[in-house]
Amino acid sequence: MTRKVVEFPPRTTNVSSFERLESNVQSYANNFPDVFEFAEGAEIWANNGKRYLDFLSGAGSLNYGHNPSELKSELLKYIENNNISNSLDLHTKAKKEFLDALDEVVLKPRGLDHVVQFTGPTGANAVEAALKLARRVTDRTNIAAFTNGFHGVTTGALAATGNAYNRGAAGVELNGISRLPYDGYLGGDYNTVDYFEKLLDDPSSGMDLPAAVIFETVQGEGGHKVASDAWLQQLQTLCRKHKILMIADEVQAGCGRTGDFFGFDSSGIAPDIIAVSKSISGYGLPLALCLIKRDLDAWLPGEHNGTFRGNNLAFVTATAALNKFWKSGKFEAEISQRSVLLRQRLTKITEQHRDMISETRGKGMMMGLAFSDPELARRITTHAFQLGLIAERVGPRDEVLKIMAPINVRMDHLDEGLNILEASIEEVISTSPHSKFAD
Amino acid sequence: MTRKVVEFPPRTTNVSSFERLESNVQSYANNFPDVFEFAEGAEIWANNGKRYLDFLSGAGSLNYGHNPSELKSELLKYIENNNISNSLDLHTKAKKEFLDALDEVVLKPRGLDHVVQFTGPTGANAVEAALKLARRVTDRTNIAAFTNGFHGVTTGALAATGNAYNRGAAGVELNGISRLPYDGYLGGDYNTVDYFEKLLDDPSSGMDLPAAVIFETVQGEGGHKVASDAWLQQLQTLCRKHKILMIADEVQAGCGRTGDFFGFDSSGIAPDIIAVSKSISGYGLPLALCLIKRDLDAWLPGEHNGTFRGNNLAFVTATAALNKFWKSGKFEAEISQRSVLLRQRLTKITEQHRDMISETRGKGMMMGLAFSDPELARRITTHAFQLGLIAERVGPRDEVLKIMAPINVRMDHLDEGLNILEASIEEVISTSPHSKFAD
Amino acid sequence: MTRKVVEFPPRTTNVSSFERLESNVQSYANNFPDVFEFAEGAEIWANNGKRYLDFLSGAGSLNYGHNPSELKSELLKYIENNNISNSLDLHTKAKKEFLDALDEVVLKPRGLDHVVQFTGPTGANAVEAALKLARRVTDRTNIAAFTNGFHGVTTGALAATGNAYNRGAAGVELNGISRLPYDGYLGGDYNTVDYFEKLLDDPSSGMDLPAAVIFETVQGEGGHKVASDAWLQQLQTLCRKHKILMIADEVQAGCGRTGDFFGFDSSGIAPDIIAVSKSISGYGLPLALCLIKRDLDAWLPGEHNGTFRGNNLAFVTATAALNKFWKSGKFEAEISQRSVLLRQRLTKITEQHRDMISETRGKGMMMGLAFSDPELARRITTHAFQLGLIAERVGPRDEVLKIMAPINVRMDHLDEGLNILEASIEEVISTSPHSKFAD
Amino acid sequence: MTRKVVEFPPRTTNVSSFERLESNVQSYANNFPDVFEFAEGAEIWANNGKRYLDFLSGAGSLNYGHNPSELKSELLKYIENNNISNSLDLHTKAKKEFLDALDEVVLKPRGLDHVVQFTGPTGANAVEAALKLARRVTDRTNIAAFTNGFHGVTTGALAATGNAYNRGAAGVELNGISRLPYDGYLGGDYNTVDYFEKLLDDPSSGMDLPAAVIFETVQGEGGHKVASDAWLQQLQTLCRKHKILMIADEVQAGCGRTGDFFGFDSSGIAPDIIAVSKSISGYGLPLALCLIKRDLDAWLPGEHNGTFRGNNLAFVTATAALNKFWKSGKFEAEISQRSVLLRQRLTKITEQHRDMISETRGKGMMMGLAFSDPELARRITTHAFQLGLIAERVGPRDEVLKIMAPINVRMDHLDEGLNILEASIEEVISTSPHSKFAD
Repeated sequence: MTRKVVEFPPRTTNVSSFERLESNVQSYANNFPDVFEFAEGAEIWANNGKRYLDFLSGAGSLNYGHNPSELKSELLKYIENNNISNSLDLHTKAKKEFLDALDEVVLKPRGLDHVVQFTGPTGANAVEAALKLARRVTDRTNIAAFTNGFHGVTTGALAATGNAYNRGAAGVELNGISRLPYDGYLGGDYNTVDYFEKLLDDPSSGMDLPAAVIFETVQGEGGHKVASDAWLQQLQTLCRKHKILMIADEVQAGCGRTGDFFGFDSSGIAPDIIAVSKSISGYGLPLALCLIKRDLDAWLPGEHNGTFRGNNLAFVTATAALNKFWKSGKFEAEISQRSVLLRQRLTKITEQHRDMISETRGKGMMMGLAFSDPELARRITTHAFQLGLIAERVGPRDEVLKIMAPINVRMDHLDEGLNILEASIEEVISTSPHSKFAD
Repeated sequence: MTRKVVEFPPRTTNVSSFERLESNVQSYANNFPDVFEFAEGAEIWANNGKRYLDFLSGAGSLNYGHNPSELKSELLKYIENNNISNSLDLHTKAKKEFLDALDEVVLKPRGLDHVVQFTGPTGANAVEAALKLARRVTDRTNIAAFTNGFHGVTTGALAATGNAYNRGAAGVELNGISRLPYDGYLGGDYNTVDYFEKLLDDPSSGMDLPAAVIFETVQGEGGHKVASDAWLQQLQTLCRKHKILMIADEVQAGCGRTGDFFGFDSSGIAPDIIAVSKSISGYGLPLALCLIKRDLDAWLPGEHNGTFRGNNLAFVTATAALNKFWKSGKFEAEISQRSVLLRQRLTKITEQHRDMISETRGKGMMMGLAFSDPELARRITTHAFQLGLIAERVGPRDEVLKIMAPINVRMDHLDEGLNILEASIEEVISTSPHSKFAD
Repeated sequence: MTRKVVEFPPRTTNVSSFERLESNVQSYANNFPDVFEFAEGAEIWANNGKRYLDFLSGAGSLNYGHNPSELKSELLKYIENNNISNSLDLHTKAKKEFLDALDEVVLKPRGLDHVVQFTGPTGANAVEAALKLARRVTDRTNIAAFTNGFHGVTTGALAATGNAYNRGAAGVELNGISRLPYDGYLGGDYNTVDYFEKLLDDPSSGMDLPAAVIFETVQGEGGHKVASDAWLQQLQTLCRKHKILMIADEVQAGCGRTGDFFGFDSSGIAPDIIAVSKSISGYGLPLALCLIKRDLDAWLPGEHNGTFRGNNLAFVTATAALNKFWKSGKFEAEISQRSVLLRQRLTKITEQHRDMISETRGKGMMMGLAFSDPELARRITTHAFQLGLIAERVGPRDEVLKIMAPINVRMDHLDEGLNILEASIEEVISTSPHSKFAD
Repeated sequence: MTRKVVEFPPRTTNVSSFERLESNVQSYANNFPDVFEFAEGAEIWANNGKRYLDFLSGAGSLNYGHNPSELKSELLKYIENNNISNSLDLHTKAKKEFLDALDEVVLKPRGLDHVVQFTGPTGANAVEAALKLARRVTDRTNIAAFTNGFHGVTTGALAATGNAYNRGAAGVELNGISRLPYDGYLGGDYNTVDYFEKLLDDPSSGMDLPAAVIFETVQGEGGHKVASDAWLQQLQTLCRKHKILMIADEVQAGCGRTGDFFGFDSSGIAPDIIAVSKSISGYGLPLALCLIKRDLDAWLPGEHNGTFRGNNLAFVTATAALNKFWKSGKFEAEISQRSVLLRQRLTKITEQHRDMISETRGKGMMMGLAFSDPELARRITTHAFQLGLIAERVGPRDEVLKIMAPINVRMDHLDEGLNILEASIEEVISTSPHSKFAD
């Protein structure tokens, strides 16, 4: 297995404990080398007092910004009262309230007759559970996953993940997956579901009938590529015909990031299993779950277990988040207002730099600029950090500068952050050797 | 793969949201069917007011009891101040303070020159990272794991786990593991490290040279079986001879459970990679990490990643726990005092019921009674729950009634819990059909 | 894993020893239920005296027909003289003569600087060796294989094979393979090498860089689909760019079947490893070998071993076959003459039955008629057998009636066999319910 | 994966075609560097006229010696008459006669109600088929195999093989196998079936319930280690209790090598599947088969296929061999006579060289001398070759000098060969540096 070796800027000198005591595996810390201490909404402050706008948002785990106040007060009250902090999978009042809120605010309005499995509190763990269950229910081994998909780095989830950099660290063979081209991957008008269908209809295609297909509606790490609603619908039709389960990995695209609560809401499909994590707690606390179509809940007690399935602090903030943000349609309108502005400004930037930026990518508040040259994207984000903006890169070559502001970011903060982005682009370009980015 | 189907008592009627909305995968909730609301130390209260003593302790994630007050006050202060909640792997003040405390309180006193990798916040994730790294560093695939070992249920960790019930849910082949007999497994005087040595020295033994051996010093789920210090030392000698890494899975045995901070402390070995989780936060909050011998830290940035590696609330309580409990030797003495009492009383129970209990098992505050008949153990814990004691069963057939009180449990609570246990044993025996347990 | 259950006609009554003593795994015997005793060229006689024309030719292992006389006389002489029959991999005079002939007649004229590995005497074994070596040389695990490819049924080879029926019997996961669409598989003008290139160029495509690509120039079991010379050339260009080895599986397409000695001769490519078996002995005797580009011969002695690598009787007939048939270009002209006639007649049949036959398929003497309805193809071959013609079906649904006469079949026998085929088609159609094949 | 690199003597100069054209994978040819031309019984002649005694016997594929005359005459007659040479799996007169003879001479007398599957004509292929079928029938994946077992080098069979040298060339993970200690492997009185039983009875042993156990009654490549009859019986009892199939790999130990037709005959067990190859044809011709207990024959037609399953020349000699040698008990007595002599002389040699030879190993005509120093064994066989004796080494370190004369070797040839062996030992010792072998 080959692995690309990445060069990072030398770490700053005020992080000596980190340099001395923390493993080389840390990555974001290399790109954003400061020591952070306080945060609120889209703002975050280093211990030296420097203020940043955070348009990374915990890689999608802080959709409502840092430390949203209503959630915070609920959390404080809960801890004050000596309520249960950790409960394994025991029943607690906090879990009950979360289940009821999820049912009222998310499941019922969508007609989803799904039960909830609390998995270990990481998206990867929810994916592992989903893959296990799909294989169990169908008694098949193969899972279809897509080019550029990212589903986590534990062994089972990593097999479904496309990223060579992460796959290269597996140490074992990553099996049980058939890779399919995502929407648009074959270019032009070629409908990639047609290829899937041909493979399924051909008894010597070499693709064993999959238990399930796992997909993101918008591929986060894959570069903010969007599956069209039509493609998702056609995929669902095909899966139902062949009794292949659909696993929606909503870990990053879910919880409002694309504009609706689920990334697939606009398509009208109803996935059999839905993996949810990241922003479900609303406060950045570890929580993950699978929503499982009721008649697929074939688990025996404790088969997929884990100590931290009962992170009650996360239940408390999650309940508060659902109740605060998702009870009426008002919040979707707020997101939409920000999305429209964001898309307008990014589109304008793209148009101004057609020689360097190939595309404005994404959906809702999960947007990005696809640069032709990954190095340019890197230099722009590095410079933006110096100017006070935290924004990351994604995509196969880290060529997409992604904008992941809180979905309820203050409008002035959104403006301010985009202004910094524009300034950074201009300054980086102006200091670049002419020959490099001009042709 | 065969799977045993387990029968559980019908759920009680006041848990309707759980019945309706939560997956069948829940297990502890089946054995302890109440809805819990408050907790402090070893005490926990249901929403109907009923009080229990909790000798399960979050399966070892609440070694200091529920909501220990010093940790709680630090946690509240941190949240109040809008400090960072979630930071991915960014540097934060809270992380720095935890790293420094870990270094001072744990690493330096033991002469461990290890760096810290924050993995996804579950023990299984720490194990996955450890296995990956061991395979990477050695460029070998095989991992040696032991009979009755339990290392988590994500695909990579599950391969190393012995439990057929959990393995049966994998849905894929669990590969890359050679299974070895744990200390004592071959019975009599047979030293199982000798067998390992023979396999290693024999070029056609069929065991590929392992990258690492993964072991628990006390097997938690495996039934509180203890590896002797001599066996661990011999294992270390053999591993060093063959350049096989040692991975200590201290997820359950660590953080004071066996009487020392690490389960291996008494043996004097120095594992290459140490997986830590469960009680490291001290407050039941999700946190997991690998301690990696400095020269083995071959990770490239971000190869093993995950959103919740930066659970800062857990850093805060973890720092407080290290500082409060582990700075002097005083705490070990407290644990020891409780351990001695616990062992005395369990030994006495065993002696009184030699026909039913084969052995007092375990080490430190990780003790248990090995019943000949798993059904008897089940009935006793069920009855104890009615009497106000939460205690679980472990072992290959759930035949070991385990006592996992807080390691700093109040002496009166320890007494009270053991009294309930004794009462439960007596009452269950007296109501049992004579023929069943008498002969 | 799902498996199609196939219904076969009841076995005839004169095969009682077979019914009683031979496993159900036999297949050709179900389709051609007679007991055969003598054979010469394209003719074969049952023990009841019935004569058949054999257009199956041992599935391509009897390219020169049954018991060709010059080979036979060499074989008899060799046995008479007490020459070596079995030699493991020891050096024998017979092996030397074969190596020299192969060098003179096959390798040198093509500029192939390849060494010869004698594998276990089956095509699958040659494929297993090729895959092992490719993985060794590149230190990669993944192998790219194509839709509808067939490479044998031992575990390693079976992973590369597309056929679900055979894959379904594996009993273990079939891993280490990325499946790619064969030439034309995506329909229309879509060049499937372009897709391969996109996957290779994309670091998060999810396809690990392959050690090798394994391909047939004409897919035998896959339904006599032909890769164009241009496609093979483009594939070679791409493989060389990415240092991916090319493994040509010439087991069925090689040894003259497509008109040249190798199926890839017309394309001008030079595969790194060439798997050869079936007709290489020229007499239907078990023999298989890999031709390995000299600088890739990284084998250590005996790593891939096996008892019957030294089938000297096969060396003798193989040497005689090379010397008799392939020393001048005369033999290619003979094949060509037959191929032209064969294609003309099959094309005419196809044109006459456009409602039932979608295509004339194949290359050289590896031709076939692709029926829309597999059942019709089945009935025609069954009836043809009654009329005295042995011809089999291939393709994903056994929908292709294949014509595999000896490549040097007597012209009158070729005519006679095709006449029987035509008669069978007419008779089957005329007795079919009108509704079934008319629309 | 680590691999030992073996140094071989430089090849002699008269083998230029081999040097130039044959892969480095050849191994026997390195140890016995001559070009062989004629052979009869135990005698073999090089093309330079030098005569050798062949106590390697095609690694057990020439149990009746080279070119036994009665088989030869049947073979010649068959070829002369234009009988069928290759028949895929079609029914032929030659196959019928073989099936009938096998039934009469082997199956019926042993009460074995087994059907015959002709696999690809290698032992490895028979093993692959056996493993597939066992997994199919039981719907389990795991296979138990033993330390030092050797079952072939195709991917499925190689997983069960213990040899690190061969395993190292796999290129993929070798999975689906649990390794168990063979009879005697744990030393002393430890009964290794007891360990197997403990693993089976323990639901968290980590060993998934096996589909089958595959074993050799005498481990050929493993160093001529013998499983006792009592151990085999106990293994059978355990397997039947857990419905685990028994696969006897009789490829090398079968066909008379141990004194009976099957290596397990003396134990009285009745394996569910028996893999047979090597000497079954009696003439060194490629042939392999599985004997399958009738009610386990769950194959669908053609699931495990292959071109050379119908090697009719091998059927002819196999039938002749069964009829000539195994119809009465007379032949067993002949083997016994030779075995007794062989054991006496080897025992005497061992006693004379207790400092260098640890043990006389084996059973029947499958004997060997276990040297303490593999290098000494190497030098002795190399010198013996110069003196006119071909004898190989086996065992984990090639430390066992094995004597595999024809089982019907002429008594004077047996004496002559053993004389050469003794002479070689004396001469090698006398020329060795005293320090090396004296202490």
